[in-house]
Amino acid sequence: MRFLHLGDLHFGKIVNSFSMIEDQQYVLEQVKEYVKKYKPDAVLLAGDIYDRSVPPARAVSLYSQFLRDVLMELKTPVLAVAGNHDGADLISFGHELFEAAHYYVAGRYTKEMKKVVLHDEHGPVNVYLLPFADYAVVREAHQDETIKSLDEAMRVTLESNPINKEERNVLVTHAFVVGGEDPQESDSEKKLVVGGKESVSATHFEPFDYVALGHLHRTQKVGSDKIRYSGSLLKYSFSEENYQKSVTMIDLSGTGELTCELLPLTPRRDLRTLTGQLDDLLNQPGSEDYLRVILTDKGQLLEPMAKLRQVYPNVMILDLLENNSDFKGSGLTKQAREQKTPEQLFADFYEHHKGETIHEEGAQLITQLIQQLRGEC
Amino acid sequence: MRFLHLGDLHFGKIVNSFSMIEDQQYVLEQVKEYVKKYKPDAVLLAGDIYDRSVPPARAVSLYSQFLRDVLMELKTPVLAVAGNHDGADLISFGHELFEAAHYYVAGRYTKEMKKVVLHDEHGPVNVYLLPFADYAVVREAHQDETIKSLDEAMRVTLESNPINKEERNVLVTHAFVVGGEDPQESDSEKKLVVGGKESVSATHFEPFDYVALGHLHRTQKVGSDKIRYSGSLLKYSFSEENYQKSVTMIDLSGTGELTCELLPLTPRRDLRTLTGQLDDLLNQPGSEDYLRVILTDKGQLLEPMAKLRQVYPNVMILDLLENNSDFKGSGLTKQAREQKTPEQLFADFYEHHKGETIHEEGAQLITQLIQQLRGEC
Repeated sequence: MRFLHLGDLHFGKIVNSFSMIEDQQYVLEQVKEYVKKYKPDAVLLAGDIYDRSVPPARAVSLYSQFLRDVLMELKTPVLAVAGNHDGADLISFGHELFEAAHYYVAGRYTKEMKKVVLHDEHGPVNVYLLPFADYAVVREAHQDETIKSLDEAMRVTLESNPINKEERNVLVTHAFVVGGEDPQESDSEKKLVVGGKESVSATHFEPFDYVALGHLHRTQKVGSDKIRYSGSLLKYSFSEENYQKSVTMIDLSGTGELTCELLPLTPRRDLRTLTGQLDDLLNQPGSEDYLRVILTDKGQLLEPMAKLRQVYPNVMILDLLENNSDFKGSGLTKQAREQKTPEQLFADFYEHHKGETIHEEGAQLITQLIQQLRGEC
Repeated sequence: MRFLHLGDLHFGKIVNSFSMIEDQQYVLEQVKEYVKKYKPDAVLLAGDIYDRSVPPARAVSLYSQFLRDVLMELKTPVLAVAGNHDGADLISFGHELFEAAHYYVAGRYTKEMKKVVLHDEHGPVNVYLLPFADYAVVREAHQDETIKSLDEAMRVTLESNPINKEERNVLVTHAFVVGGEDPQESDSEKKLVVGGKESVSATHFEPFDYVALGHLHRTQKVGSDKIRYSGSLLKYSFSEENYQKSVTMIDLSGTGELTCELLPLTPRRDLRTLTGQLDDLLNQPGSEDYLRVILTDKGQLLEPMAKLRQVYPNVMILDLLENNSDFKGSGLTKQAREQKTPEQLFADFYEHHKGETIHEEGAQLITQLIQQLRGEC
């Protein structure tokens, strides 16, 4: 059985005052192409469908259109849960009625997990849909006063929904699993969160053959090959700029063995950092990418943002190196290095040593190796 | 073929700072009982499902539950359009997917009207769903610069969607039809609106066998027996306090003849005006109704609202007769008279003349007569 696992769609998100709706529409076309090409048995949406509980009209319309295309044109079931950004009631709207169209969605937390049974030639696959819910909601649903953290909420939820281990079982949920890395969080925030009330242990997921997670925007596996975040469809913060975005394709064999492939997504506009002197940047060809520009000029500059936007219309952030304590003393070299992906750095290194650019096969090998090291696939 | 026609649900409405959600839930139970009892072929919802384009979560949840009950438990199709209060995109969400569950909804305006064909033993009935749309939207959809009013928008829409007059045809839409009476509007506002850019002529509806309208909160027919407002499910303003709320049941014969019955709704709490002296009112049994209290006391009163709310917890508005220019010089008698429904006034008159209270049969006869005079049924 084949799944296309995605999550953290965040339809309607605004990043530094720029609406992402057209970028989301652009990348969804690629998702639909993958559905068309790879014909998964179901698309799994692991929460944060919208960016907020009350999404703008265009976000609602975009999701509606996506569902229509996947379900009606591509005849592929969609199984979805609400994330912490979603309004549970909105996501739940019409959920029982939608099942006739093979859209299965769990918005509001219920004591009994929604279970969807899919079939392939090896038999049934039980897919459980567990939406994000505050532990207080879980405590009330189970009338269990001992639930005082999301970890306990997860434990109680899964214990009270025993699965049939004779069959294959998949869980779709939205949580911060201990060990996951979140590029969006600063180190100090991460320490507060991991192991705290907001994270859950990967051990709860042991009985499942695959756990399709949402919440962390970086593509990664956590603790085990079968517990994965697909990551967000787009880079929504400059802390994510060095990560390739993708959707995760999972093949589950008749005996529950997994193979995983990351299908890359190309954004309409990349989100990246540009560093240099104002005049140098203005003399370059320009770009419509979403940019954080770090200027290395010293002294006063006259309307740098207005000038930059003539060449780079989508500058999101303008920073001056000398005003930024992060960069003080570190120099430009480190900064320039940090802008490059490991793949690019290796290509530079290769070229430096061999005197020629890396050949495609070698570059692919490096990409795979880096993905493995990162735990992405 | 039988329809239950309702409109102006306004889920999530707040009236004078009081949420109506529980009142809406209460009255929906009666609607469902009518569906159960009278087994209509479809429920028609003529717009203003929500009170605002971005409704609160509980309103979304209430509508979802209502749809589930009517469609899945009572196995009755629901045909709905968006009103001017609704967000077209939200109402449209998943509309193609919902059709598998027999929920047909037109949220966004489209050049081609959504047509749902229902069948009875006499053949097909074509039900057209035309949501509210600003005339600028219609102008753009038709690329017709001559459309400069809602009336022209309606004309162009209906002209470009020719109907088969050999069959029976029903229109569900949301509009202010010329000749309709809106208790919510003051006289001065009404003059601005009727015949202006915002109203449409009833003549456009001539080809239809029935037109199920939403927008005006008073139950009424307009221009013809076959063009009707079902009215709102609840009284949402004190200008509506003398009107009985109902849903409209329509039977359409094989030859397109109509019979109409108004099925009354009983609110959880009535919305009414109470007039009198503070001390007298405080000595009465009290009530949980939503009240406008008009105090006839002269001179200063100490915390009248706080005192009243001990006996009448849901006082919405407190007015002092002597401060209210509407009442100056008119005295209490007219005011007291205006509070009473025509039915109550007749009952008083009967009792005054005959020396006995009116018998039930007589009262029913008077109610029917008044409904006819009012053009309600």
